[in-house]
Amino acid sequence: MPAREDITYWGAGPALMPTDVLQKAAAALINYNDTGLGIAEHSHRSQHATDIINEAKADLASYLSVPTDKYEILFMQAGGSGEFSAVVYNLVGAWVQKKKAAGASDSDLQKAVLSLKCDYIVTGGWSEKSYKEAGRLLGEEHANLVADSRKSSSTGKFGSITPESDWSLTSEAAYVYYCDNETVDGVEFPAFPESLKPKADGSGPIVVADMSSNILSRPIPVENYGIIFFGAQKNFGIAGITVAIVRKDLIPQPPPALMRKLGLPIPPIMLQYDSIAKNNSLYNTLSIFDVYIAGQVLKKLLSTYPNKVAGQAEVSDKKAGIIYSALEAHPDVYKIVPAQNVRSRMNICFRVTKGADVDAAEKAFLKESTALGLTGLKGHRSVGGIRASAYNSVPLAGAEKLAAFINDFAKS
Amino acid sequence: MPAREDITYWGAGPALMPTDVLQKAAAALINYNDTGLGIAEHSHRSQHATDIINEAKADLASYLSVPTDKYEILFMQAGGSGEFSAVVYNLVGAWVQKKKAAGASDSDLQKAVLSLKCDYIVTGGWSEKSYKEAGRLLGEEHANLVADSRKSSSTGKFGSITPESDWSLTSEAAYVYYCDNETVDGVEFPAFPESLKPKADGSGPIVVADMSSNILSRPIPVENYGIIFFGAQKNFGIAGITVAIVRKDLIPQPPPALMRKLGLPIPPIMLQYDSIAKNNSLYNTLSIFDVYIAGQVLKKLLSTYPNKVAGQAEVSDKKAGIIYSALEAHPDVYKIVPAQNVRSRMNICFRVTKGADVDAAEKAFLKESTALGLTGLKGHRSVGGIRASAYNSVPLAGAEKLAAFINDFAKS
Repeated sequence: MPAREDITYWGAGPALMPTDVLQKAAAALINYNDTGLGIAEHSHRSQHATDIINEAKADLASYLSVPTDKYEILFMQAGGSGEFSAVVYNLVGAWVQKKKAAGASDSDLQKAVLSLKCDYIVTGGWSEKSYKEAGRLLGEEHANLVADSRKSSSTGKFGSITPESDWSLTSEAAYVYYCDNETVDGVEFPAFPESLKPKADGSGPIVVADMSSNILSRPIPVENYGIIFFGAQKNFGIAGITVAIVRKDLIPQPPPALMRKLGLPIPPIMLQYDSIAKNNSLYNTLSIFDVYIAGQVLKKLLSTYPNKVAGQAEVSDKKAGIIYSALEAHPDVYKIVPAQNVRSRMNICFRVTKGADVDAAEKAFLKESTALGLTGLKGHRSVGGIRASAYNSVPLAGAEKLAAFINDFAKS
Repeated sequence: MPAREDITYWGAGPALMPTDVLQKAAAALINYNDTGLGIAEHSHRSQHATDIINEAKADLASYLSVPTDKYEILFMQAGGSGEFSAVVYNLVGAWVQKKKAAGASDSDLQKAVLSLKCDYIVTGGWSEKSYKEAGRLLGEEHANLVADSRKSSSTGKFGSITPESDWSLTSEAAYVYYCDNETVDGVEFPAFPESLKPKADGSGPIVVADMSSNILSRPIPVENYGIIFFGAQKNFGIAGITVAIVRKDLIPQPPPALMRKLGLPIPPIMLQYDSIAKNNSLYNTLSIFDVYIAGQVLKKLLSTYPNKVAGQAEVSDKKAGIIYSALEAHPDVYKIVPAQNVRSRMNICFRVTKGADVDAAEKAFLKESTALGLTGLKGHRSVGGIRASAYNSVPLAGAEKLAAFINDFAKS
């Protein structure tokens, strides 16, 4: 029976949660704020629920510096995969809406639809899934593959980001999409892509980023984005809610009849940002318990780091730095999966190449690390290897412990 | 500070939960099965998660007698409102798929689509929302209003069910939809509708029922249905998961390109039953914590009632009977909202007509009942009045306490 305090869990998500947050949540589940009722029993229309939602939104905006005059923070359901679809529906709708507002007739719109493109930069399994969902919902001819890092890599595998000079962006795309951190191979964009930056006159593409696995871990230039979304279960809380930060002008949708006439898809009501925004995320029954937990995570971050997300970023850099350094110190024993310039701070993926039998070496690595309380280190089922997910709840001491083990294992 | 044991909560959902289930869940949140990790931290791909899902499915099938050779039990996300859309996508897809399997050419299908109808029986706010979603996604001409109980009522309000002899069913409808229990006005179908029953040769309409608010409270003739769905947060658990029980032959979908050609909508991946079924409800990260809670609710029901849901049905009948009898004993003080033959066992809706000022009388009723620990009795914001939601977790003793108060208040 391992004790909680002896374990550092490195799973890729659902992820480790701060123990004190779980303890508070457990108490609130039975009796919230001395009301005699649990937080999951109170009505989502109660003042308790409204306060929890509004506080979580305000704390998220504060921690990440989201300009709330220009952006809505929405609590959605159905996870990151739900957002893969929501992005398509809502931004194609916004694309039509904008042309309509500029005076386009229905026949102008019908012509424009023929060349409708949604741009996708594919750097791993998640952005690829999202790209495929756009093709499924719109027709493959409308989903443009800006870059696929398998194609630009000598290995034919994910693990890099195609140089921006080789991206084939569409000039009038409805939006450009990328995944800021790919968890399977540990590929993270080092910074906001140069070629997607707004021009001096403020014009530029509508940029969408999936930040499910690195949100709250470094500052974000929010105003460069149309939509930022993330599932809760890595750095924000537990599975069950998804957040979309959406630029307000992209929210209104054209009438369904027009979209049908144009042969374009209409969002189901639960994936329509407009219906969620108009109801302060309560179009239907949201899990207020999940929002409460995320709110507690934010309060803990805000009280830990006076300089907010920049404070967490320093710690995240440090944790990743310690582990990558330990791996680099033994190039004969470990092979880091991603290219150096795109190494993820969140998911540190490597192979154990000690000896002839990689499989046996990795099994030994996992067995010995688990015995030390370093758990959840097995790589994604699709690629194998080792993956250490250093999400926000993994403490610096945990990273030091793992680095020490990496060293010891190499020497043994 | 009210103590939990002194409160009987009558809220319409999220609803009261069994205290022991919440206590188990609170412990599991911090340390699940002595693993040293909480249930919401373990991977949804772990054996723990698989076991929790499979046990909950098996227990649900056992409790409700679901023939699992013919039906899939799916854990979905996005709530009942998500299912309003999912039903349209998946059953229109199944309608196309069936015609295609019978040899229809694309041009046959294009002709058939012109007369595509989805039948909706509207008996309250929830079935109305679902009807509107079908019209939004397909075009209003494809959503057929079989009956609207406001139109067949002398009051012009919900509170009854249009007699079946006045229903305008479509002979070749893709499906027929109704809401088994409407929470706002307290209208429940007394039994499976006669005119939707399968014929002797087994043929009959594909019937869909929203059972969000009365599931697990009475036996269901599952084989009469194509789809039964329900949100968890009334009788099954806490908000965050939704269950769809779907007849297996209705799950496969036509290729997206064909649906686009026919001008019909394609489900977003998270609302496509096929993708959820193929992944044992784990297409993406489901809240295993929510499934765990529902599983514990089922285990409690199964251990309480040797004759399974029939046992709960007796208790539900008894609770509702006690409360309705108390109200009927004072016809000058209380007016029950729904017609006698469709009174909900789950949501008991009434007005307090004592004296000239209904509003003042209802305020007094709420104030005095709350003081006694009978809370959450306020009617839905759209209609006012009093609503006592006697969901499964409300004990018989709670119903007796409320009935006694109804009596006392009338006499005072």
